[in-house]
Amino acid sequence: MSEKSFDVLGLGNAIVDVIAHAEDDFLAAHALVKGAMTLIDEARAETLYAAMGPAQITSGGCAANTAACVASFGGRAAFIGKVKDDALGSIFAQNIHAFGVGFETRAATAGPATARSFIMVTPDGERTMNTYLGACQGLGPDDVSEEMVRGSAYIYLEGYLWDPPLAKVAFRKAARIAHAAGRKVALTLSDAFCVDRYRDEFVDLLRSRTIDILFANEHELRSLFGTAETEAAIAALRETDALGVITYGAKGAMTVTREETVAVPAFPIERLVDTTGAGDLFAGGFLFGLARGRSEKECLRLGALSAAEVIQHLGARPERSLKEFAEQEGLAV
Amino acid sequence: MSEKSFDVLGLGNAIVDVIAHAEDDFLAAHALVKGAMTLIDEARAETLYAAMGPAQITSGGCAANTAACVASFGGRAAFIGKVKDDALGSIFAQNIHAFGVGFETRAATAGPATARSFIMVTPDGERTMNTYLGACQGLGPDDVSEEMVRGSAYIYLEGYLWDPPLAKVAFRKAARIAHAAGRKVALTLSDAFCVDRYRDEFVDLLRSRTIDILFANEHELRSLFGTAETEAAIAALRETDALGVITYGAKGAMTVTREETVAVPAFPIERLVDTTGAGDLFAGGFLFGLARGRSEKECLRLGALSAAEVIQHLGARPERSLKEFAEQEGLAV
Repeated sequence: MSEKSFDVLGLGNAIVDVIAHAEDDFLAAHALVKGAMTLIDEARAETLYAAMGPAQITSGGCAANTAACVASFGGRAAFIGKVKDDALGSIFAQNIHAFGVGFETRAATAGPATARSFIMVTPDGERTMNTYLGACQGLGPDDVSEEMVRGSAYIYLEGYLWDPPLAKVAFRKAARIAHAAGRKVALTLSDAFCVDRYRDEFVDLLRSRTIDILFANEHELRSLFGTAETEAAIAALRETDALGVITYGAKGAMTVTREETVAVPAFPIERLVDTTGAGDLFAGGFLFGLARGRSEKECLRLGALSAAEVIQHLGARPERSLKEFAEQEGLAV
Repeated sequence: MSEKSFDVLGLGNAIVDVIAHAEDDFLAAHALVKGAMTLIDEARAETLYAAMGPAQITSGGCAANTAACVASFGGRAAFIGKVKDDALGSIFAQNIHAFGVGFETRAATAGPATARSFIMVTPDGERTMNTYLGACQGLGPDDVSEEMVRGSAYIYLEGYLWDPPLAKVAFRKAARIAHAAGRKVALTLSDAFCVDRYRDEFVDLLRSRTIDILFANEHELRSLFGTAETEAAIAALRETDALGVITYGAKGAMTVTREETVAVPAFPIERLVDTTGAGDLFAGGFLFGLARGRSEKECLRLGALSAAEVIQHLGARPERSLKEFAEQEGLAV
């Protein structure tokens, strides 16, 4: 394998998470949409930061979390995303490099600050995100390294890339290079409201076979196909050629293809603390398994184990080695 | 009570913690002194930051952690300490304000950056700290508000204040104002190596009755009195007029005076994750109890409960309401 050879390459918004516990009353008082990711401007960011509870700073970003998860299993992972050369940008870079994830995207030297997501975790463990995109607005096709894409078995793209102006161009470029090199392209739908914003384009990505693997939770999937019935959404997904990976929170997860369905239960946990990153880590475990040639059932189990680790503490990055955790649980990889 | 009336006023180094898990091999490879707080310069800080594991950023500082603990019980707490007006300084201020702690110390606009402590947490839960003092070097007597000191029932000072050049002058000023106003002054010895550096001065603080309450763990206490025997150190402490509060980690804690000894066991925990802040939170729970007129035994129990909360997650600030936790455990305050 060359230096530029990876199991998984994530492309996404490079975000520092500012995370705090909050009561449901706080969400109501600040008109926050529970469970959703809402985009905010700098003034709103400052207001929320001043009002929220004692915050911790952790590195985040959907695809970056997934890349860190793959690396925590001992997989080779890389990430493309845009920070600024400021203090939060250094924090993001230190964290992802310390996981062993390849991250070389040039930091912006001018323009808005490194992105941050203000995350309120309510007593039920649900997270509500408010994201100031900042430097992510500068991500564009020039940031996509052809060499990195060609060398990566799986390219993982987040739906949130539709929010900044040029990131979707980067997304399409990465997908094109990947397919030309015989690689697989995965998309996560990210958030049901994000799907609302870009439904037609996301459906087109599936129908045009721009993506090979779709990660979604049941809400996102129903939103994608404009139906209130999960079964109808799954039936619509089966009509495409994509491998669907659907997560149901505490009810487990499953894969669906035209012919087949494989399901696993959620991995048992002691205490739900914070669901931030659950979907990202699920995708990371699943993709690591795929890259190592494991069966779909085993991939689902690795995803479930990863999600279980991350929801038992604050923050979206694993706090223990997932390789060791998987070995302990008899899922040696 | 006036706006400037507090149960506890902490005076200490204002520090942002950069915290990561590490193996014992890492400590050895980087010649780190396990369990200690070592002062480092900026170059060493950068080397460690680049080498350490995926780091999380949380607010720290011994006396600041104690003040946050008091506030988490619903007590009125304030803190005096020096940050710079940079990104980490904002993070420190947001966190302590969000706890409801009064913090008005003017941030430095020039000079070194906000202090940070690089904390490695080994698999046994022990923390090893390497601190770049930065802006803390600028703390001096002008930062001590006479009004805040006079209005605070307990003044809590950390031994680490002996490290920056003028902070001990601030310390002595605060103690003088406090005693003139009939307030009580507490000192935490902070760290056995810190005691090594300033042993004679700390003993003098006790013998001159500059301090009324001494917080120490057994290592610090032995270091203070230059003995290998904890019993001999306790006997020496009894010769002073101070109330001694001695913590023994998993073995519990006790108070000692000339005539009396009161002991409690450690509060039971499910899983030791990170001892960072254990002593600071113990002191916070204890002082909150004292300020509310509780018995020494009850104060010890509140200290033990606080320490138990903080050692079950990464970071030195409570992640749940200590008031609620105490109520649940029948220690309603």
